[in-house]
Amino acid sequence: MRRDPRFDILFEPVRIGPVTAPNRFYQVPHCNGMGHQYPSSMAEMRGVKAEGGWGVVNTEECEITHTSELTSAIECRLWDDSDIPVLAKMVERVHAHGSLAGIEPAHLGAGAANTYSREIPMGPAARPIDLHEPVHARAMDKADIKAFRQMHVDAAIRSKKAGFDIVYVYAGHDMTTLMHFLQADRNDRSDEYGGSLENRVRLLREVIEDTKDAIGDTCAVAVRLAVDEMLGARGISCDAEGRDIVEMLAELPDLWDVNVSGWENDSATSRFTDEGYQTDYVSFVKQVTTKPVVGVGRFTSPDTMVSLVKNGVLDLIGAARPSIADPFLPKKIDEGRVEDIRECIGCNICVSGDFLGAPMRCTQNPTMGEEWRKGWHPERIAPKTADETVLIVGGGPAGLEAARALGQRGYDVTLAEGRGVLGGRVHIESQLPGLTQWRRVADYREYQISQMANVAVYLNSPLSADQALEFGADHIVLATGSDWDTTGIGRSNRRAIDGHDAGSVLSVDAICAGQSPTGPVLIFDDDYYYMAGVLAEKLRADGHDVTYVTPTADVSHWTHNTMEQARIQTRLMEMGVEIVPLHNLTGIRSGHVELSCVYTDVVKKVDCASVIPVTMRNPKQDLFWALRDRASSLTRIGDCDAPGTIAAAVYAGHRFARELGEPEVSGVPFKRELPALAVD
Amino acid sequence: MRRDPRFDILFEPVRIGPVTAPNRFYQVPHCNGMGHQYPSSMAEMRGVKAEGGWGVVNTEECEITHTSELTSAIECRLWDDSDIPVLAKMVERVHAHGSLAGIEPAHLGAGAANTYSREIPMGPAARPIDLHEPVHARAMDKADIKAFRQMHVDAAIRSKKAGFDIVYVYAGHDMTTLMHFLQADRNDRSDEYGGSLENRVRLLREVIEDTKDAIGDTCAVAVRLAVDEMLGARGISCDAEGRDIVEMLAELPDLWDVNVSGWENDSATSRFTDEGYQTDYVSFVKQVTTKPVVGVGRFTSPDTMVSLVKNGVLDLIGAARPSIADPFLPKKIDEGRVEDIRECIGCNICVSGDFLGAPMRCTQNPTMGEEWRKGWHPERIAPKTADETVLIVGGGPAGLEAARALGQRGYDVTLAEGRGVLGGRVHIESQLPGLTQWRRVADYREYQISQMANVAVYLNSPLSADQALEFGADHIVLATGSDWDTTGIGRSNRRAIDGHDAGSVLSVDAICAGQSPTGPVLIFDDDYYYMAGVLAEKLRADGHDVTYVTPTADVSHWTHNTMEQARIQTRLMEMGVEIVPLHNLTGIRSGHVELSCVYTDVVKKVDCASVIPVTMRNPKQDLFWALRDRASSLTRIGDCDAPGTIAAAVYAGHRFARELGEPEVSGVPFKRELPALAVD
Repeated sequence: MRRDPRFDILFEPVRIGPVTAPNRFYQVPHCNGMGHQYPSSMAEMRGVKAEGGWGVVNTEECEITHTSELTSAIECRLWDDSDIPVLAKMVERVHAHGSLAGIEPAHLGAGAANTYSREIPMGPAARPIDLHEPVHARAMDKADIKAFRQMHVDAAIRSKKAGFDIVYVYAGHDMTTLMHFLQADRNDRSDEYGGSLENRVRLLREVIEDTKDAIGDTCAVAVRLAVDEMLGARGISCDAEGRDIVEMLAELPDLWDVNVSGWENDSATSRFTDEGYQTDYVSFVKQVTTKPVVGVGRFTSPDTMVSLVKNGVLDLIGAARPSIADPFLPKKIDEGRVEDIRECIGCNICVSGDFLGAPMRCTQNPTMGEEWRKGWHPERIAPKTADETVLIVGGGPAGLEAARALGQRGYDVTLAEGRGVLGGRVHIESQLPGLTQWRRVADYREYQISQMANVAVYLNSPLSADQALEFGADHIVLATGSDWDTTGIGRSNRRAIDGHDAGSVLSVDAICAGQSPTGPVLIFDDDYYYMAGVLAEKLRADGHDVTYVTPTADVSHWTHNTMEQARIQTRLMEMGVEIVPLHNLTGIRSGHVELSCVYTDVVKKVDCASVIPVTMRNPKQDLFWALRDRASSLTRIGDCDAPGTIAAAVYAGHRFARELGEPEVSGVPFKRELPALAVD
Repeated sequence: MRRDPRFDILFEPVRIGPVTAPNRFYQVPHCNGMGHQYPSSMAEMRGVKAEGGWGVVNTEECEITHTSELTSAIECRLWDDSDIPVLAKMVERVHAHGSLAGIEPAHLGAGAANTYSREIPMGPAARPIDLHEPVHARAMDKADIKAFRQMHVDAAIRSKKAGFDIVYVYAGHDMTTLMHFLQADRNDRSDEYGGSLENRVRLLREVIEDTKDAIGDTCAVAVRLAVDEMLGARGISCDAEGRDIVEMLAELPDLWDVNVSGWENDSATSRFTDEGYQTDYVSFVKQVTTKPVVGVGRFTSPDTMVSLVKNGVLDLIGAARPSIADPFLPKKIDEGRVEDIRECIGCNICVSGDFLGAPMRCTQNPTMGEEWRKGWHPERIAPKTADETVLIVGGGPAGLEAARALGQRGYDVTLAEGRGVLGGRVHIESQLPGLTQWRRVADYREYQISQMANVAVYLNSPLSADQALEFGADHIVLATGSDWDTTGIGRSNRRAIDGHDAGSVLSVDAICAGQSPTGPVLIFDDDYYYMAGVLAEKLRADGHDVTYVTPTADVSHWTHNTMEQARIQTRLMEMGVEIVPLHNLTGIRSGHVELSCVYTDVVKKVDCASVIPVTMRNPKQDLFWALRDRASSLTRIGDCDAPGTIAAAVYAGHRFARELGEPEVSGVPFKRELPALAVD
């Protein structure tokens, strides 16, 4: 197929200083939890994006010195020349597909604890570092500033040696020393680097100039700047100093990469923001510079992209998360296959990798991080190894992905779904407040399957064991999902809660199915991810009095890892949900519950008519046990194997499809890169 | 010198199955944050302990399969044969000094999220994992149990190949699958592995037998068992099932390594427990087995050790933290140098490394983790490079350690302390509730210095710049410490808090100096480590009404990393301290303060007469600036450079001493072991 001529503008080359991007698709720098520790995984992941048509592919932030390092977050490093080969490998992979490779050297200053190197952090002022470590930064003196500039020059030269085409100067996300110097409330210096905005901008200007002097002959110099901290007059804002800074430096860099700050604002989730949520903040930039401008906003719609370029908002369409969900997004537009785009759902499971010190995952793209390690390509998959048939029971995220990938391999697949609609938990959860875009997990796969002659879908088809066997499939795959438990068993209660079998207990599933509880309602969150918080929001919006109880110290505790926690708790508080943290649910009585303080065991009573335990899920395995001794090939995948994230379910479905018919691997089923053991 | 004959018993060899420990000093397995990621650092650290006289030196927990891994905590690994060389290097280092090397293979089951491998955890029951990740474990079926047993056998065989003398079977710390099977409230199985204690013990028994069959001919098989969960009748306890388990398996292993569970109980800090705090729980074990028994309790006193052996409580003196603080503890006893022991202060900075995914640190031992990377030995240091003199101003942890280590190098050192006592902040803080043992940081160094003819100490000697110069020292080192700030500036307030200059504000230093505030007292904790919590405890004990306010969700938030958080908050609550989490201090008025909700910005007022901001510290640099252009060699170390932990101050002092006169290193000042970049 050929691309829609409406989208031609997206495929125009863009000159960036001494280099030229082949099109307008620009993967901005983003963390990935691979970096220096899993170098070939990182390199191959970037290379696949170039193959998928991203005209520019950048690294994550790259530590330029051991004196400013982010252990245990895994970034890339240019501490010295020994780090060059890792980055050169990434460049080689990107160049192999004709794209430009960019790097984002970073000095984190008061944003780094240096837990590994044990060096003293430094910044514009002598202050505690931003992280909660018991560490203060020291105030940089003139010698420090000189050394700081030299670090950037050294990093730029090493970047050039590694082959990069674009070298960043990074003043964004409230995270780097260069941004900290800009911020009036961090920078209380009385020398020429503090005070007036002109003075606060001085260091950024010098580093841009230094970098251009060092490598600007052959490399483009990009500036990544936070033009708005979303703090109003208390911070940098796009109608005040954010704009002033761009105006002061307008023609100095070869490229402006502009966004909002901090990271939780830049990478806000779909639960709280829509596509293009940054446009209002960054649209001024093109009015004050002739240099190309890139911006982000979880863009997945080519129409939106075209309009941004045509309306003079952006020259290059920046993307982090959409390029993770679909590394081949540009190529699919190019080839007239817009319907094949696997759109980012904005859940930020990817972001959690950075907080967990692990390679990032993606709900939509199960191959993310597996490109090198397992040899998984997001678009290609080996053809089937035998003319076999597969019956998949359950059309949730695991079953849908297994059907799609097996179908792609050429297997004859039957997918039987008990409900009248595909999607399983994704279908259900996407109807909860803020989670609409999660529906894309099902939409993408449903469309793909609909194009495959070898995949048959049966709705409204719950199967008994006999019925499943009657299909005569060579392989039966169970993707029957899970039920939310109502006994209260979970992390905090290893035995059923006294009174759980009273009439006042309602399951999460019942609420999701539309049952309206008798109020007042008490939600007990021993799960810590999004579900309890979303249900509190839904039931409060429905007019109920809602009390949210959790043994953790704050609401939806695990969502710190998706950078949503503050937004969730703020929303619940503003809606009037009563929050009782640091309490366990220990007894359910008629008209009230007993809550026990996690510290003192002191019990208090809270009145309520309905109790919703959000504690754990039970895999639905009835069919498994009924088939176990009767089916020759029987596999559980996804939540019916072990309940987890939607990302884990999609991954399980994909993995089954990849491994079917392949020789079983004994031992570790992926490649590793171990530290080279020193001989001394 | 020769050892005191009273201690001879500690140097008796102990037969452990087919191997013999050369003495009774036994370094139990302990995490260190180096493991598979910093392998030579790990190996050398263990080797130094063997050199220091520990007759047995163990690894940390060692992941035996990629299907149960603890990313981002850094443990050692035996996933497959490729991991053997790292462990063989450790064994070689330990054997070089005539000690036995032990390994602790571990299957974490429901204690692992498998964030890196993406495998489904498994355990006795289908439950959420213990970590707060959105992950459930699946219940192990018979095939899983068979595979589980094989994993232990494979690990044991690989351990033998690596050269280990002792191989553990690990059922402790509420952390491993083998312990989870023992626990009635985790193990709800209806098969022969669940139900009765006999059934719940079955898997442990099988793994011990399997391990003995596999490698018991030449290797000892040790069992590490938690005999008490400190949950009374709700958990395993030493007067019920804890004892029963040992009785049932009494003669099966070659060694019993027994302790209390969870980890926060096993490794309790000196703030909450005294030396020997586990003895009452484990003393029954030797009554029910003839096999040697090892136990721990932060033992640093040789008299206590002797009494434990003589009284039939333990055969081997187990130690983790005391062996970290002083790897040469056994040798010092052996050589009649008991006064030279660098005693563990029980602060758990070491433990924080495991939570932070970084090599561990030690407050007392600045060389911990630097043995290979920087070539630092805990007892040896290069002699001075020139006949030079050093003046150190300030006798806190940084100054004391610099004086001690420079003295050891042979430099002519003068230490001038303004107060009438050495120790600086250590002297002051060790007078706060629970922190008495922290005084050991000063005690050890004060004694060492007192034995050095080339180190002169002057008390009550605050120095002016002129006075400092009059010494005519070749090098001046400033270790003048820091003052607690009173403006309120810190992480949550980048500008001074309105009203901070009113009369109601008292500094942390004033309270520590004994000033009694007018009540009621409000403590604002924007620091998150121990200080605010300790002050709240002190002032409440003094009879004040105390309100503790913090922007974080719980008290002394960073102490999650030292496993003290729950104990601290419990204590404050039980003492009647009013706790206001999730609020910032935004205004200080006459008779009250204004607190702002961190989520909604809603302001509330709290009455108080005194306000103590615990926000940040200001380095004391007056002398530095006065000397800056006048002294030829002038260096700041410790808190006067940048305030941090006591461990960081000791490290800074030690580093200065190591580096004086040595050629300056450009670039990274330590050795690295990078991943071996794959060629494909």
